[in-house]
Amino acid sequence: MNEAADCVFCKIAAGRIPSLKVFEDETTFAFLDIQPLAEGHMLVIPKRHYVCLTGMPAEELAALARHLPRLVRAVMEATGAEGCNVLQNNGRAAGQEVQHVHWHLIPRREGDGLGYRWNASHYAEGRDEQVRARIMAVLSAPGD
Amino acid sequence: MNEAADCVFCKIAAGRIPSLKVFEDETTFAFLDIQPLAEGHMLVIPKRHYVCLTGMPAEELAALARHLPRLVRAVMEATGAEGCNVLQNNGRAAGQEVQHVHWHLIPRREGDGLGYRWNASHYAEGRDEQVRARIMAVLSAPGD
Repeated sequence: MNEAADCVFCKIAAGRIPSLKVFEDETTFAFLDIQPLAEGHMLVIPKRHYVCLTGMPAEELAALARHLPRLVRAVMEATGAEGCNVLQNNGRAAGQEVQHVHWHLIPRREGDGLGYRWNASHYAEGRDEQVRARIMAVLSAPGD
Repeated sequence: MNEAADCVFCKIAAGRIPSLKVFEDETTFAFLDIQPLAEGHMLVIPKRHYVCLTGMPAEELAALARHLPRLVRAVMEATGAEGCNVLQNNGRAAGQEVQHVHWHLIPRREGDGLGYRWNASHYAEGRDEQVRARIMAVLSAPGD
């Protein structure tokens, strides 16, 4: 197992720190957050250590993602939630606190006061195409 | 193609409504949000119509998820972002506005004022195990 020293999520996935485990298979581990945003707030992690999604092999993320529909259904049914946010933060600037990839499943109800701060804006004329062209250039670069 | 009438994301994925497309393959379509939370804010959708993750077949989500590491890397590099949130909302109570599964890739910088409202709480004694047991019961029910 690719385990990082002093990573609490590696220790949880290995069973060396107790957790409120709800699911486990060869690659993926799911448990309840002990400081939940709502009852049933679940974390789904790869057992192998990756800091961010940017460094996670595509097939390993696919293996984890296969479980998300079923886990979202289960947490919603078990808590009677009306909705569910699936959130994954990359980098401290994005709110990532534990440096091991983790997906939050956050059960939601109308008026619960949770959710993303939705400060939508608009592109200045032509700026959207500039940004798009930059992304396309990165995607078409050799090695990516 | 499994297309829902009057679904704007079905029309975008089919190319019948123009979009700032950055990626497309057989199953997945990615384009820039025209009302971005930050420059480069990207939406990644399955071409087939599913309202929520709860109704999406595991293998179809896996096919989409395979592209997320590369797309997150591209949007971060193209915009010089320090982080990135990956967010998917299920249900109106969770902030879902378009009723076709979509993943938000939201580039982040320190102090940008974005992010999830993080009102963490604690379980009353024993309540965490009750919630866990309910989720486990759903997961072990026949048919799921």
